[in-house]
Amino acid sequence: MKNRVITISREFGSGGRTIGRKVAEKLNIPCYDQELIEKIAAESGFAKEYVAEHGESAPQIGWFANVLAERDYYGHSVQDDLWIIQRKVILSLAEKGPCVMVGRCADYILKDAADCLTVFVHADPEKRAERIVRQYGERTDSPQKRLKDKDKRRAAYYHFYTDRDWSAAQNYQVCLDSGVFGIEKCTKILAELY
Amino acid sequence: MKNRVITISREFGSGGRTIGRKVAEKLNIPCYDQELIEKIAAESGFAKEYVAEHGESAPQIGWFANVLAERDYYGHSVQDDLWIIQRKVILSLAEKGPCVMVGRCADYILKDAADCLTVFVHADPEKRAERIVRQYGERTDSPQKRLKDKDKRRAAYYHFYTDRDWSAAQNYQVCLDSGVFGIEKCTKILAELY
Repeated sequence: MKNRVITISREFGSGGRTIGRKVAEKLNIPCYDQELIEKIAAESGFAKEYVAEHGESAPQIGWFANVLAERDYYGHSVQDDLWIIQRKVILSLAEKGPCVMVGRCADYILKDAADCLTVFVHADPEKRAERIVRQYGERTDSPQKRLKDKDKRRAAYYHFYTDRDWSAAQNYQVCLDSGVFGIEKCTKILAELY
Repeated sequence: MKNRVITISREFGSGGRTIGRKVAEKLNIPCYDQELIEKIAAESGFAKEYVAEHGESAPQIGWFANVLAERDYYGHSVQDDLWIIQRKVILSLAEKGPCVMVGRCADYILKDAADCLTVFVHADPEKRAERIVRQYGERTDSPQKRLKDKDKRRAAYYHFYTDRDWSAAQNYQVCLDSGVFGIEKCTKILAELY
């Protein structure tokens, strides 16, 4: 029997990761986020920082040209190696039991392998800008630029490997604006829908 | 004080209209759908059938060319007249009290005029195809073709008047897959979020 898995895709700074952790706590099931990165790093030999950064975001704007340029004779890139290992780890964790998975195209990877509740969390850029400054501190780039850059890279990555539009409502069973409802209410709704 | 209004945008055949009616019943507030059409028809002098058909869908695929071709010397079309009256009716109904509005870009029209819970309802094309045959019967065109055509026209209309992407998750506070959750569960969630 397929396990019940919640997959959470989220805009940067929307609190989707926190919601995932809280839903998992509420349902008493594991939430794979940091642990996912560690397992992928262990299996792949890539550094954890590399996996965290490149396992769900295109390396930079203009990535399509880049990723093509970096392909070997067989059309294969380092990014593809990471994708293959990541896919394998996600599939094997979902086979172990019910869980929450944050990011990394898990919704797409598990579409036939688990009984998924697929979620997309987003929020107003202003609220997200506040949140990332609170969570990750100030940087040289403005929070607005950081949001735009990160989301663009996540969308490009998602589109490249899934051929789907990252933020189309139709790709998810439920999409929530965490800026309007707040983390607690979103957690409650998802636990209820599960 | 701004009234609390639920706006429901929906894919054809997703049951969004039924969900709207049921939420309104549950909350004991009016649901404007047929009544909206009647008011717009009365104010505009257009036939009810015309309002029902052209108040939220582009007339046909290739509508952009069409709508430009049909503009008068001042760049104004019949469709624009309908839009202006529709907008006025929606604003005045939202001022009367809390309510549910189905379709007709109400989310966009009311964004500064009401305290909106903005909703998008969608479902798998297969489930929607079954539903439209059950609700509206068979037609010469296949249900798949009818869905595709109607959604394309709704998306084009929405995009033309709002400059937004009709099915982007970010445009709505909550998006739900009624094919997965069913009408009753969607109704319950929306009543709770209201």
